[in-house]
Order: sequence, then C-alpha cells, then structure tokens
Amino acid sequence: MTSRASETMPSVTDVEHDQLVADVFARACASRGVLEHVTGRWGSLALAALAEGPFRFNALRRKVDGVSEKMLAQTLQTLERDGFVRREAEPTIPPKVEYSLTPAGRDVAERLLGLIEFVESQVPQVMAARARYDAAKSA
Amino acid sequence: MTSRASETMPSVTDVEHDQLVADVFARACASRGVLEHVTGRWGSLALAALAEGPFRFNALRRKVDGVSEKMLAQTLQTLERDGFVRREAEPTIPPKVEYSLTPAGRDVAERLLGLIEFVESQVPQVMAARARYDAAKSA
Repeated sequence: MTSRASETMPSVTDVEHDQLVADVFARACASRGVLEHVTGRWGSLALAALAEGPFRFNALRRKVDGVSEKMLAQTLQTLERDGFVRREAEPTIPPKVEYSLTPAGRDVAERLLGLIEFVESQVPQVMAARARYDAAKSA
Repeated sequence: MTSRASETMPSVTDVEHDQLVADVFARACASRGVLEHVTGRWGSLALAALAEGPFRFNALRRKVDGVSEKMLAQTLQTLERDGFVRREAEPTIPPKVEYSLTPAGRDVAERLLGLIEFVESQVPQVMAARARYDAAKSA
C-alpha cells in the first residue's frame, strides 16, 4: 500500500503471489480486482446488506433496491468465489438458498459499513459543495 | 443505514434532504451516488493516493497505474465537486496544478485505506478460495 512498497517490490499477480507484496496501485496486481469486487456498485451493497444477517435471494434483492436478478446473481457468485459470501442450499423442494458472510466477508463488510455510514452522514455537505462548485463554474 | 431506518423513513434525494435520513440501499438516495464516486474504480485509488500527500496531475497519473488522462481528469473533477478533493492552480507559466484532499476527503480516504489494506492482506486467501470454488464447479 505504501509508495515504498510499490517502488521497490514486484506486486502480486494472479500467477504468483507467495513472496510478493500486494499493491492496488499496480495495474496487474490481483488485489485491484478483489477491491473492485467488494467496492463495486452492487458488491458493496450486497456485503453491507449481509452484514445484517443471512438473506434469501429475493429478500436480498428487495433490500438492495434497484439491482436486477441477473446482476445480483452475478455479484453473489463473484463474492462467493472470492470467499466473502457463503451460499447454502437446503435440499427441500423447492430448494431454499441462503446467503451469508464468511468470516473474511464480515471483516470486509465492517470496513465497508464504516465508509458507507460516513458517506451517508456527509450528504448535506456534499450537496452544499456541489452547489458551490456549480455556482463558481457558471459565474 | 439500518433496516429500521430504511423501512420507516423516506430517504435523501438530490431534491430534499434536510430532515431526512440517508440510506444507500434506497435507489433514489443521493448517498448512493456519492458512495459510487468514492468507491469507483479510479475514485478509490485517487483518494488513496492523495492520502499520501498532494500530487500534480501527471505524478498522480503515474501513481494510479493504468488510468487514462481523460478518466483521471473526470474522476478528480467529480471528487472536487463533491468536496473531497481540492484543486489549486498556481498562477505560473505554465500553471502548476496540485490536487490534495479536503478534511472530508481525508476522512473518506482513511476509511478506504482500511478497506484497501485489508483486501491487500487477503490476496492469498482469495486465490485459495477461487481455486477451491473452481475445483468444486468442475468436479
């Protein structure tokens, strides 16, 4: 993460990562893709929602207002593959499928929630900043 | 942010936000757009880079490996308009333009860095999770 690390050490790629240091600033570093999965438009909201507890697919879709079925399914699959979300299907008819956070997913969601709550608290200030910016531009 | 809030209160929109509670889960809430600006592919990296100190445009572009001139300019403009980045032009010839974080930008960047550092530390675990997932799918 530090500039020292990115200047002096090669960074982690999908191919080799054992003795290397991850650095999101490096284009080929695998950490950049992981960051995009957890901060993506729907990934961040799905993780934040699951921080409240396990969800069935349709309940999660109602919670994450505006996501399409296809996008939510894709998002959950990506997060499951990365090890942040657990998918459990009960062998009933019809099958009940439940999504929850893994321990690593909880760690990510906790940090995301800190960011989300700060952003939510900043909305009035952001609106005021935008109004000032637009006024200065049109002056 | 809590489900209680989102169920019982209307949420913040661009139009009215004074007495309302921001909720990123609501499609029309302005906080969702702000979150997308600070977690976007280039927005998050620009904020994280500026956490190290002020940057000139070209130095920032070298730091955020892979960003195009156009995308970085757009990203910085969006973050400046939201009040997270300050742009200062010295009246020299040619003008020196420097970008830095505002106090609100530092608060956002600090939370982003917590997330980024965790993601960087998780790369080996994510790689292992992906290998397990892919092996299970192809079994």
